[in-house]
This record gives sequence, structure tokens and C-alpha cells, in this order.
Amino acid sequence: MKEDQLNNLFIEKLLKNDRRAVARSISIVESNNSSSSELLKSVYANVGKAYRIGITGPPGAGKSTITNQLTKLFRKQNKKVGIIAVDPSSPFTGGALLGDRIRMTEIGQDSGVFIRSMATRGSVGGLSKKANDAADILDVAGFDYIILETVGVGQSELDIAKAADTTIVILVPESGDAVQAMKAGLMEIADFFVVNKSDRPGAEQAISALNTILIMKEHNFNSWMPNIISSVASENMGIKEIADEIKRHKNFLESSNKLLERREFRIKARIKEIVEDKIRDLLWNESGKNSLNSSLEKVVLGSLSPYHIADEIIDNFKNQL
Amino acid sequence: MKEDQLNNLFIEKLLKNDRRAVARSISIVESNNSSSSELLKSVYANVGKAYRIGITGPPGAGKSTITNQLTKLFRKQNKKVGIIAVDPSSPFTGGALLGDRIRMTEIGQDSGVFIRSMATRGSVGGLSKKANDAADILDVAGFDYIILETVGVGQSELDIAKAADTTIVILVPESGDAVQAMKAGLMEIADFFVVNKSDRPGAEQAISALNTILIMKEHNFNSWMPNIISSVASENMGIKEIADEIKRHKNFLESSNKLLERREFRIKARIKEIVEDKIRDLLWNESGKNSLNSSLEKVVLGSLSPYHIADEIIDNFKNQL
Repeated sequence: MKEDQLNNLFIEKLLKNDRRAVARSISIVESNNSSSSELLKSVYANVGKAYRIGITGPPGAGKSTITNQLTKLFRKQNKKVGIIAVDPSSPFTGGALLGDRIRMTEIGQDSGVFIRSMATRGSVGGLSKKANDAADILDVAGFDYIILETVGVGQSELDIAKAADTTIVILVPESGDAVQAMKAGLMEIADFFVVNKSDRPGAEQAISALNTILIMKEHNFNSWMPNIISSVASENMGIKEIADEIKRHKNFLESSNKLLERREFRIKARIKEIVEDKIRDLLWNESGKNSLNSSLEKVVLGSLSPYHIADEIIDNFKNQL
Repeated sequence: MKEDQLNNLFIEKLLKNDRRAVARSISIVESNNSSSSELLKSVYANVGKAYRIGITGPPGAGKSTITNQLTKLFRKQNKKVGIIAVDPSSPFTGGALLGDRIRMTEIGQDSGVFIRSMATRGSVGGLSKKANDAADILDVAGFDYIILETVGVGQSELDIAKAADTTIVILVPESGDAVQAMKAGLMEIADFFVVNKSDRPGAEQAISALNTILIMKEHNFNSWMPNIISSVASENMGIKEIADEIKRHKNFLESSNKLLERREFRIKARIKEIVEDKIRDLLWNESGKNSLNSSLEKVVLGSLSPYHIADEIIDNFKNQL
């Protein structure tokens, strides 16, 4: 990216919610090069007005349908909505393509909505950083709500949902999700639960199972007890209740000063991620790669272990800095 | 870990396939501290005799059943089998607990089999390193086959399966797995496919869809064309065919000198992982953590961006080294 692309005019356009400037800015942060950090540095003073909502859950729970309906509701309140949908690298979660198509026809034409899909494939580690960078861009551009939608499979996807102001875990009646969710620590990240497709058999049992677990764990929640909302998102049932619960949680965070606490936590995780990312770049520059390649033979011949070589590379790295 | 635990007697026991020494060694490498790298350094000369098989696929495809049946077959050939089963952090893949229970009763009592489950939760990034370390221990201990079984969800899980000599992707007839698998790059890592539960409706279509995709991509495979095997693992059907195909692939790798190439690739990825792991430890030592905490306020007050702070931390780090 050339200097002129980062000129004041461009940033001004971004701040004015100019669609093309937003799209281009997100492409810049996705490219994850030095222009990316320059851009984010120069606009950071404008970050912090948007409210971030994390939506996660198993494949097929209806995350994108809920995101869509929620977006339509927010639009009726005249709020602008930015959506970052993280498609996992997993081949077995499906739905992403179809979901995107529905999204595009339903809300994608609305100028008050901006949708960006990110693929996890091939971007190990950096994904949560990129998603947060893109959320910052949407924040700067004046979107009131930013929805971070990720499938609840894999640690890095969960990290993204967790890095929101309000995190919603979507479950469906079947398959004993409640118990599985507990096992995987989703109980810890959910500010509230949605049991979607609640017109299906087993919904009541699922809700009551979830309730039991929540009561058992009650002492873990300090002053905020996650609620359970029923919905049939495809028929727009329960969406208003979800929006109300987001608001209730937002009020709770603001009145208890926990919103700041959360954001501090999120910023901390991000700084760590940025630092590690940069250090990795320094490590595996031309000279680092060469040193790795040249020592490889010693391991293959069995004379040294990967751990020996790692020590050598770290020593080299220290000497170079 | 104290010095005496790493004495020659202990290592001798490990080399003699002593069960307790194996278990303890894996616990040491899982703890991932300095004893872990010492142990791996001192035994590394004995790594490289075992043949490593990666098994991956969607939740519910029958990976652990196939692993079990394959293990029983290898045992009949008087081969020792080490199994590393990686349970994902995902709450929605289930099965792990049940699978383990079945495993324990069926093959867990056999002294020629060693099974270790690893959870991914909370061990982001380090998982593939730990799995490979544990595989090295099993290799040193004289297991002939090492099976690395992981669910094909999430990049780090796929990385584990990929780091094998032969990688098998298990699919089931339903849910259009073939197409999804292509989308997620599983085509690139599969040395062959197994369509399990092939007595179910849709098996033939699934195989033919997979075949079409493979033919379309044929030019991507240099001289090795992945086969498709049908199985009903729960009834022990197709297991011999899977074992034969592993052997055929092994012969191909050995005769084409590609086995060495693969192992080099694997070692390279490992060295990188070890280096990054150690650098992270250096970064976030007491002083690194303090520097992060103390600069946090500047970001929260909006005067600096996370990118500014990251630069500061990296500068500090450089000065310290």
C-alpha cells in the first residue's frame, strides 16, 4: 500500500462510513502487513463507540439466521450494523456459503449494514487478530453494533466470540448440547444462551438441563446470571427477546463498571497477539529461514534433536537483535 | 522433575518399552517445561523407527472405531501400537468419552498397545507440539505404529494429522462431506480416503462424488493418486483393506524417497513450533507481563493504540535479550 492510500482524505472517508473506504480498510487489515498497523494506529483514537456482540455455537444452530434477524431489528432502530462472520477451516460445519447467500439478499443491500466473511483456513493464530482489527475498522467507521459470528469449534474461534462486550451462545434442542457446552467451557463465556429451533422436540428438556447446570455453577458468576432465551429465528420468534437481553447485559456492564474491565481484558489479549505476530515475522525472516533450512540436515541424520536446533536458532536470533 | 528422574536407568526402561516409563515420559513432555526438552534431546537419537499414521475426519465418522480395529489387526501381526487421540476443545464433537471407554475395554488391556488422550482445551498452539513430542516418546519406546487420531475441525488438529507418514481422511456417506472436504483442503492432506459406514444409504454416491473431485484434481498429485476405501468399521469390514493401503503408501514413499522428504517437512514445522514456544516464554516472563499491564492504561484512555504498545514491548524485549 502506498503512502497516498493512507492520506487524510481516505481516513476521513472511513470515519464518515464511506462503504468503499470501509471495504478497502478491512482488506488492508486482512493483509496484515505494515500498512495495516499504520492504519490502525492512525484511527485508533476513534475506536470504542461501537458495542460488540459475539455469537457462537455449534454448526447448524442457526447463528447466521439469528445474526440476520437481529440485524434487521437493529436497523429498524436506525442503528448501523457491521458483521464479521468467521468461517472455520473445518469442512464439516457447512452452511457458510448458503448463509452468506441468504444474508446477501436479505440485508446485504442495506447501506447501514456491512458484512465481511473471513476464512480461518491458512491463517492459524492470526485469525482472532484480524477479526479484531476488522472490528476496530467498523467501530471507527461508525457502526453502532458489531456482530462477531463464529462457530464454537476450536479455541481460536471461541476466542473471537469471547472478545465481545456481550457473548451469546446459541444451542439447539437435540444432541445434548448443554452438557457438551459445559464440558468445553462455553458456560464460562456465555453472557446468555439462546435455545434456537425451540419448536423442535426436546426443547423444554434442553432448557431445563441447561438451567440445572447454570444453577449448579451459580457461584461462578459474579452478580450476573446468564439467562436462557428460546427462539425460532427462521420465523423471527425470540429475536426481540434476544435484543432486550443484550441491552440488559449492556446496562449491567455499564452500571457495574465491568464494561471497562472487559475491554481492558480484550486489549491485553490483542497486544499479546500483535507482539507475538511481529516477533514471528522477525524470527522467520530470510536469515531465520536459512538458518532453519541449513540445520535441518543435522536432525534428519539423527545427530541432533529439533530441540537442539531450536536452541541454536534462538541464540542466533538473540545475537541479531 | 529432578535430575535422578532423567538418569540412564529411566531412559533404558523407556527404550525397553517399559509401560510406566512410557507413561511418565509422556507426562513429562505434556508438562512442556525444561525437563521435557532435556528428555527429548537425550532420546532423540532413537527416534525414527516407527511408522506414523494420521487419522482425521468429521465428528462421528468412526475414527476411533477404525483406530481400534486397525490396532487389533496390527497386533495380530505382532506389531506394537501407540495411539495419541486428540480430543478437540469443541463441545459439539462429542464421542470422545464413549470412544475412550470402548477403547479401554477392547484394546487398552493389551501390553502391546499404549493409548494417550490429549485435550485441546486451554493448550492453544502447543497442542501439535505436544502430540509430536508424545509420538517421539512412543517411537523411542519401540512402538512399530503410531496412530495420531484427531478430529478434522480446526487448523491445529489438521496439522497433527498432516504430520504423519500416511494420512487417512475418514468420511461418512451423509452430509456432502466430500465437497466440504475439498473446500477445507482435506484433499491436500489425504493419502487416501475411507468412506466408513458404507452400508448406509448414499455411500455409492458419496464415493462417486469423491472420485469425481479426485479426478478433477489429479494433476495436483505427483505420482500418488489417493484411493477410496469403503468400510463398516463397527463390523470389521474394510479394515484389512485400510491396512493394505497404508502398506502400499508406505512402499510408495520408501521407493520414491518421499518418506525422507515428509519427515524433513515435519521436523521443520516442529522446530518452528519449539522456537516460537520458547520465545513466547521469554516474552511473557515477569518483566514482559509487567510491561504489558503498565501500558494497558494508555490504550484504555485512548491515547495509544494496541499497535503502539506492541512496538514498545518489542523494543523492550530486544533491549533485554
